[in-house]
Amino acid sequence: MTRHQGRHFLQIPGPSPVPDRVLRAMDMPVIDHRSAEFAELGRAVLQGSQKVFKTAGPVIIFPSSGTGAWEACIVNTLSPGDKVLMVETGHFATLWRQMVARWGIEVDFLPGDWRHGASPGEVGAKLAQDTGHEIKAVMVVHNETSTGVTSRISDIRAAIDEAKHPALLLVDTISSLGSVDYRHDEWGVDVTVSCSQKGFMLPPGLGFNAISEKARAAGKTNKMPRSYWDWEEMLKPNAGGFFPYTPATNLLYGLREAIAMLLEEGLDAVFSRHQRLAAATRAAVKHWGLEVLCLEPAEYSPVLTAVLMPPGHDADQFRRIVLDNYNMSLGAGLSKLVGKVFRIGHLGECNELTLLGALSGVELGLSAAGVPHRAGGVAAAMAYLEGPVEANAPMHLKVVDI
Amino acid sequence: MTRHQGRHFLQIPGPSPVPDRVLRAMDMPVIDHRSAEFAELGRAVLQGSQKVFKTAGPVIIFPSSGTGAWEACIVNTLSPGDKVLMVETGHFATLWRQMVARWGIEVDFLPGDWRHGASPGEVGAKLAQDTGHEIKAVMVVHNETSTGVTSRISDIRAAIDEAKHPALLLVDTISSLGSVDYRHDEWGVDVTVSCSQKGFMLPPGLGFNAISEKARAAGKTNKMPRSYWDWEEMLKPNAGGFFPYTPATNLLYGLREAIAMLLEEGLDAVFSRHQRLAAATRAAVKHWGLEVLCLEPAEYSPVLTAVLMPPGHDADQFRRIVLDNYNMSLGAGLSKLVGKVFRIGHLGECNELTLLGALSGVELGLSAAGVPHRAGGVAAAMAYLEGPVEANAPMHLKVVDI
Amino acid sequence: MTRHQGRHFLQIPGPSPVPDRVLRAMDMPVIDHRSAEFAELGRAVLQGSQKVFKTAGPVIIFPSSGTGAWEACIVNTLSPGDKVLMVETGHFATLWRQMVARWGIEVDFLPGDWRHGASPGEVGAKLAQDTGHEIKAVMVVHNETSTGVTSRISDIRAAIDEAKHPALLLVDTISSLGSVDYRHDEWGVDVTVSCSQKGFMLPPGLGFNAISEKARAAGKTNKMPRSYWDWEEMLKPNAGGFFPYTPATNLLYGLREAIAMLLEEGLDAVFSRHQRLAAATRAAVKHWGLEVLCLEPAEYSPVLTAVLMPPGHDADQFRRIVLDNYNMSLGAGLSKLVGKVFRIGHLGECNELTLLGALSGVELGLSAAGVPHRAGGVAAAMAYLEGPVEANAPMHLKVVDI
Amino acid sequence: MTRHQGRHFLQIPGPSPVPDRVLRAMDMPVIDHRSAEFAELGRAVLQGSQKVFKTAGPVIIFPSSGTGAWEACIVNTLSPGDKVLMVETGHFATLWRQMVARWGIEVDFLPGDWRHGASPGEVGAKLAQDTGHEIKAVMVVHNETSTGVTSRISDIRAAIDEAKHPALLLVDTISSLGSVDYRHDEWGVDVTVSCSQKGFMLPPGLGFNAISEKARAAGKTNKMPRSYWDWEEMLKPNAGGFFPYTPATNLLYGLREAIAMLLEEGLDAVFSRHQRLAAATRAAVKHWGLEVLCLEPAEYSPVLTAVLMPPGHDADQFRRIVLDNYNMSLGAGLSKLVGKVFRIGHLGECNELTLLGALSGVELGLSAAGVPHRAGGVAAAMAYLEGPVEANAPMHLKVVDI
Repeated sequence: MTRHQGRHFLQIPGPSPVPDRVLRAMDMPVIDHRSAEFAELGRAVLQGSQKVFKTAGPVIIFPSSGTGAWEACIVNTLSPGDKVLMVETGHFATLWRQMVARWGIEVDFLPGDWRHGASPGEVGAKLAQDTGHEIKAVMVVHNETSTGVTSRISDIRAAIDEAKHPALLLVDTISSLGSVDYRHDEWGVDVTVSCSQKGFMLPPGLGFNAISEKARAAGKTNKMPRSYWDWEEMLKPNAGGFFPYTPATNLLYGLREAIAMLLEEGLDAVFSRHQRLAAATRAAVKHWGLEVLCLEPAEYSPVLTAVLMPPGHDADQFRRIVLDNYNMSLGAGLSKLVGKVFRIGHLGECNELTLLGALSGVELGLSAAGVPHRAGGVAAAMAYLEGPVEANAPMHLKVVDI
Repeated sequence: MTRHQGRHFLQIPGPSPVPDRVLRAMDMPVIDHRSAEFAELGRAVLQGSQKVFKTAGPVIIFPSSGTGAWEACIVNTLSPGDKVLMVETGHFATLWRQMVARWGIEVDFLPGDWRHGASPGEVGAKLAQDTGHEIKAVMVVHNETSTGVTSRISDIRAAIDEAKHPALLLVDTISSLGSVDYRHDEWGVDVTVSCSQKGFMLPPGLGFNAISEKARAAGKTNKMPRSYWDWEEMLKPNAGGFFPYTPATNLLYGLREAIAMLLEEGLDAVFSRHQRLAAATRAAVKHWGLEVLCLEPAEYSPVLTAVLMPPGHDADQFRRIVLDNYNMSLGAGLSKLVGKVFRIGHLGECNELTLLGALSGVELGLSAAGVPHRAGGVAAAMAYLEGPVEANAPMHLKVVDI
Repeated sequence: MTRHQGRHFLQIPGPSPVPDRVLRAMDMPVIDHRSAEFAELGRAVLQGSQKVFKTAGPVIIFPSSGTGAWEACIVNTLSPGDKVLMVETGHFATLWRQMVARWGIEVDFLPGDWRHGASPGEVGAKLAQDTGHEIKAVMVVHNETSTGVTSRISDIRAAIDEAKHPALLLVDTISSLGSVDYRHDEWGVDVTVSCSQKGFMLPPGLGFNAISEKARAAGKTNKMPRSYWDWEEMLKPNAGGFFPYTPATNLLYGLREAIAMLLEEGLDAVFSRHQRLAAATRAAVKHWGLEVLCLEPAEYSPVLTAVLMPPGHDADQFRRIVLDNYNMSLGAGLSKLVGKVFRIGHLGECNELTLLGALSGVELGLSAAGVPHRAGGVAAAMAYLEGPVEANAPMHLKVVDI
Repeated sequence: MTRHQGRHFLQIPGPSPVPDRVLRAMDMPVIDHRSAEFAELGRAVLQGSQKVFKTAGPVIIFPSSGTGAWEACIVNTLSPGDKVLMVETGHFATLWRQMVARWGIEVDFLPGDWRHGASPGEVGAKLAQDTGHEIKAVMVVHNETSTGVTSRISDIRAAIDEAKHPALLLVDTISSLGSVDYRHDEWGVDVTVSCSQKGFMLPPGLGFNAISEKARAAGKTNKMPRSYWDWEEMLKPNAGGFFPYTPATNLLYGLREAIAMLLEEGLDAVFSRHQRLAAATRAAVKHWGLEVLCLEPAEYSPVLTAVLMPPGHDADQFRRIVLDNYNMSLGAGLSKLVGKVFRIGHLGECNELTLLGALSGVELGLSAAGVPHRAGGVAAAMAYLEGPVEANAPMHLKVVDI
């Protein structure tokens, strides 16, 4: 048996593989978090993060998971009894909704089929009806990690504007930031929530909130008890490059390096690369005769592709076979998709050959698991990748640029 | 100039220096947090942590700083309007009190002079007066990192018991756990709060709550909104070695290694080592003619020593000179002690020669800063360390064993 | 452009990719090379190496490249004016011959076409003619890294025995040891030369000589000046786990870990894995309509495949395109094969998906470089790999077992 | 017991502690040694090394120990039957002499007492007598690692010049280069031999030869068989940043980083730092009432101090006690000094506090071993270090500048 030898292919939609440069940057002695040397680090990561979020406003970094950053967004902007509009894009939107509810917020949850992004039209219609402006915030997941569907944030912004509604726009970019085109300021987002272990290519352990002036103002009057997540407590020491409590220093070392890598490649190049790899993946899936969960081409995720299993075949059984035979991790179906889909992550440090190795593993796994499919998916992906970069990239950039 | 060359001496009272074994354990590819391989890691660190907290009950690990673990302790046990008894042992007790207040809890804050630990007698007296049992919890910092004073938790437990008071006992062991003798179960503590970057010798980024049955029961009826910190949400997946949201995987790799190191040395040996190094440090301070901030020998901290500067001399100016000339970080005085004390950390991976190098740096720094002192402190520390391990260790172990 | 992003595919026939476990084992403080702790390390690697060479006799480890181990083999066994029989299997055999000549040895160099291994028959015939036993040694390269052709060492041993010739058998296993079945003792080899950066999965920097009793005896009377490479100087301190001069300590840390990895997987499993990956590679090459340089199926290399470019196409131009477009390094044609072949390394830490990623890169590169080929090579490799492990492995193990 | 906990103090005179930056630079994937990326690395280390050797001529880097670099120096410049003048400065000079003899060279070995450096006067006298110019080379160890005595190379150069003797000047700087002022070109040295694990602060595994025009010319006509060590074979590919056989790539990564560190600090600052630390060490030794082996102040080594044990006390027993009790490695007495001296290394990454920690360990060890001494040596070292850098540094720089 040649099982579990060689390099593991971590093709889940996050945590994404951490580049050696980033791991090594973290593998250094911790320093005094009250020193001038630390302040330099602090400023570097706070300012560097602004470039990735594309904001001139503050970005707050918590020692937390992305879930913590969700909570920070809620407790700094909303009050018990407030009403928000959320969209059921999938498992994570549902989890976020549950969290919102636990904080005593009323949620108007636009139902979804988990195969489409948030509909700007429906959001606009809801807001138009809300003439009393009871809705305090629209909360949307940019890239629904459970389904591989992106929501068009700039269109949702337009819908809010058209409805002349004052609601805050709170966006989860946990699995999109640093991989998918995203513009906090230009798109008028009030809070952008993110984390370290996806497009930032870091291990898990950091949560982010990019915040607008309007969001910050909301935080000054809202009525939610909080301490750890309080923005104002953060922003005071952040001005000098410091944090109000001990930060996750070594993860910040990694963040500095990861931001440098993103900017070296260029954010547009990073986004275009993700688009190409995602399109190549879909070419393979289509060739196999399998179905991509996402039904709307303009909403295909550049970071992951969720694939439906044919009826009578269990996705988790398939994933086990892939792991046991080919040393690759694929993402599971979550919640109502358990056993029905598997998810291929192609984000972060991914490149063509890594992706093709991964798709080979999927194709071999389908065969090993007895899942009906047409052989040749890898070749189809290769054919796609052979197309000119210039030709295919813009087409796909439209997905989020519309 | 020979400045800032060679190995930095990180002698702050945490983060403590991370051993190479731990850093290297963390410097490995991240794995799928839903895999069987992860479950093994999860179980290893959850069970290993129990040994360090000396509890048979659950230990919860958050991706957070220690401050987050403070908050978790509060929101899982108390309700708005509750009253708690806290003791002003120093800066961190004061910060914790502020956090408690932010959560709408009324605090009876026993005043302190920052030079003594929490008085079991005063705590007992307060509880005895509270015949209506309005006090829901007694909250104490085991090792006050800002002052180098420990509080005798087992005595406080005894005082609560004597008062036959049902209050929960909530203890901050942020800078003591894994360095100072501590017994969650034996001492009847309800929640023990800790973090990764002190006795666990890890980078910052993990918060801990060890919880008693009684604390857990309190959490089932208390009225504090919460989601990220909710124990019950954690305990469900923890049973299988998993976490409800993405854990800080690489820090958990490090935690597994750090626990192994603590158990290899033996917790009692670890505690005894800290006692000896602390006593040696005090011998140096005494020889220099400087004053240890802690006034009660039975409460000397084994992990740090806060030293008072003579009047007219600024501790921060001294610390800067030490950093610039001898490449060593010392801890600053905090809050009302700013400029008045410096703190020498001697915890975690510290050993005799590292300590003596550090004390040499203090002595040279005193001289360079023109602080009046009697030369020979390092020699005094050496003289102490030459004493038989068997003879001096038990004497000091009494500090926390009383 | 998405160029040079993500993980580099190092698919040269060595240095092979170093596993994270090995790199991290090396990333530790150097220790005193005269300490008891070092002696443990020394014994571990010296004894562990014996298992990989399959010898009960001594293995000598030099701080050197493999070229140094070649030289050590020569100067410890031969004398100026001696005559040896060598076989022109390719570039490295030719280089070794040049080195032998520089040491004043006469070489009878059996000509070869670089597409076959050493012929046991020809070797036997030469020895049979040498009735005066002027030939002191037969020197053969086990796996010719420049051509991807293995020589059947056990058959050559048989040929020597049949000729009843006393010549020493000196074998270069630089690119085969730890990847291809090899048995120093069982095959009666006198000196086996190897290095760290191929099957041992280490960075370059260690050279090895495994030596028979007969070789050692030869070294006691031969007349070649030497000091650094002298076996006897090594063997004395080696007995205690030490070395006569400062060893490459951190590479030895890595060697200890690498040997552990090989033994954990099991040498037979390692060999079988290499056989399968090599066969899959040839399936791809055949499908592309390209020609494998090696003409003898029983001599196909399990560690690399050298592929002939169609006339009119330059292999180095192709390799450049692959590197620039797909971030993969392939091996160049060497010496008379410059521009005519490229070499695909599939050794060491390689597994199925890594190989398929690499083959995808070759196929895409052929296309990008305008090299005529039939698309579908990757699919052919996948088809091969889908075959039952049990069925195909034994067939291929025969390659070297004949 | 607090034994073997915390950071090990590696205070042998090499290998010296490897800085984290260097270890981490080495902890990266190996690259294709025939690629453009490698050529950049190759050029960087070859040119950077020239700055450290202070030469405009070529520096050759071998995958070898320093012993290998000794051999390379010999076989590239001398011929069997040649005569050389060497000086018995200690154990390593004696080993080098033995190596020279093994290569069939006649050695005129000026006897020494192991407590003084090579005498320029005696060397000059010998050369003056050698009117037939039979002596082909003068071979001297710059810093005798076994004794802690430096030889004044510029004075020896002057003596050779005064004698108008054409002998080559071959100098071993194995434990001095990068720590002690050394000027290959200015001092007219023909071959400077060095290695990676001392002043370069790398793990062992690289050997160096810096060579003059005259040395290179000698190598073109000398009659020593060689291949691995042949300079000309190296120099051809070196011109493009490549090597004739697989180089120790990861050590070269480390070398690039280490050279950067030396140049960032500034070579003069590095030398001055070593002088100060050495002088502080001697202040301690003197205070203890022990004797420094080196009898000539102008020849005190800046990198190590060898200390004589009082009669009746065994240095190795003392070293064992220090290791067992204080987790520090000291250097042993070698050859005729076994048991009679111990050696304190203070080179490479060493700084004041590391040194003072180390000296504390020596003082505690003397006490634990019952070696008569006057307490207070560490204080004496501190007193020395308190002196103004400007005042003491120049005084000591004279040691090698005379």
